[in-house]
Amino acid sequence: MRHRLLEACVDCLVEHGWSGTSTTLVSQRAGVSRGAQLHHFPTKNDLVVAAVEHLTETRGRELVAAAAALPHGERRTRAVLQMLADHFTSAVFSAALELWVAARTDETLLAAVAPLEARVGRETHRLTVELLGCDESRPGERELVQATLDLVRGLGLADTITDDARRRARILDRWALTLDTVLKERP
Amino acid sequence: MRHRLLEACVDCLVEHGWSGTSTTLVSQRAGVSRGAQLHHFPTKNDLVVAAVEHLTETRGRELVAAAAALPHGERRTRAVLQMLADHFTSAVFSAALELWVAARTDETLLAAVAPLEARVGRETHRLTVELLGCDESRPGERELVQATLDLVRGLGLADTITDDARRRARILDRWALTLDTVLKERP
Repeated sequence: MRHRLLEACVDCLVEHGWSGTSTTLVSQRAGVSRGAQLHHFPTKNDLVVAAVEHLTETRGRELVAAAAALPHGERRTRAVLQMLADHFTSAVFSAALELWVAARTDETLLAAVAPLEARVGRETHRLTVELLGCDESRPGERELVQATLDLVRGLGLADTITDDARRRARILDRWALTLDTVLKERP
Repeated sequence: MRHRLLEACVDCLVEHGWSGTSTTLVSQRAGVSRGAQLHHFPTKNDLVVAAVEHLTETRGRELVAAAAALPHGERRTRAVLQMLADHFTSAVFSAALELWVAARTDETLLAAVAPLEARVGRETHRLTVELLGCDESRPGERELVQATLDLVRGLGLADTITDDARRRARILDRWALTLDTVLKERP
C-alpha cells in the first residue's frame, strides 16, 4: 500500500506538477482510503518527499545496472553522457524538479529535500567519476565531473518545455570530445 | 501602474513561488485596485508571462551593459562565465524557473512561455558567441557555446536549494581553462 501511494504520487507530480498534486488525488489514484494514506503519510510534504526518495533510489539502481552495460573503449565517454542525459530528462527528473522548485520557497519542504538532494548528488558524482575513469587527485578532474553533471542538469531543465533531443545530442558529442581530450592529455 | 504590477508579480514569484502567487496578492503588493489589475491583466497567466517578459528584457539590457565593462585579454573568458553565472543565479532566474516549471504541466501557459523562452535563448546565445569571440562556422564551436549556457543553467538550478557559490567558482575556473584551450588550439 505504501508502495502504491509512492508510485501514484510520483505519477501525479509528473503529470500535474506540485500545485496540481493533492493528497486526495494521490489516494484516489492509488486506490487507497484517505485514512490509510494519512496513517502512512500525515502531510503532503511527507508523502512527496518519500515518493521522490523512493523513485530516486529505484532510478539509482537502474543507473548502476545501465552502467554495467556501457561499452568500453572509444565510445565509452559518449555512452556515459547519454546515460546521464537520459536520467536527467526522465520522469524522475521532472518529479524531482517539481520538488526542488517547491522547496525553494517552502522551508519545511527544503529541510527534507536538501539532505536527500545532497546524498543523491554525492552518489551520482561518485558513479560518474568511476564511469569516466577520472582521478580526482589530479587538478581539475573533480571540477570536470561536476561540470558534466551541471551540464546534464541544465540540459534536463531545457528539455522540460521544449523537446530538445537533437540539440542535446550534438552538445553531448562535443562534450565527450572535450572530456576525452582533457583526460587523454594528462601528464 | 502596469509597471508596478509587473514588478510586484516578479517579487511574489521570487518570494512565494508559482503556487503562492495570486493576482490578489500581486495587486495588494503593487497598491493597485483589483479592477485596475483586471483591466491590464485579465488572468494570472497574462500577468505572470508579462512580468517575466518585462524582467527578462530589463535583465537583458543589464547583461548587455555588463558585457561592455568586461575585461579584455587573459581574464576575459572567466569574466564572461561569471557574468552568465550571475545571471543564472539571480532573482530573474528564480522567477523564470517558477514559470518554466509551471508551464511544463499547463498547456495555456506553455503556449505563452515557449516563444519567450526561445527568443531569450537565441539572444543569450548570440551575446555569448560575441563575448567569447567564437566562430560558429568552425566545427564544434556552436556546441561549446550551447554547452556553456546549459552548464550555467544547471549551476543556476543547483543553486536554488543550496548556496553553491564556492563550488560554482571552481567549476567555472576549470571551464574557462577548457574553453581557452579549445579556442586557442584552432587550426
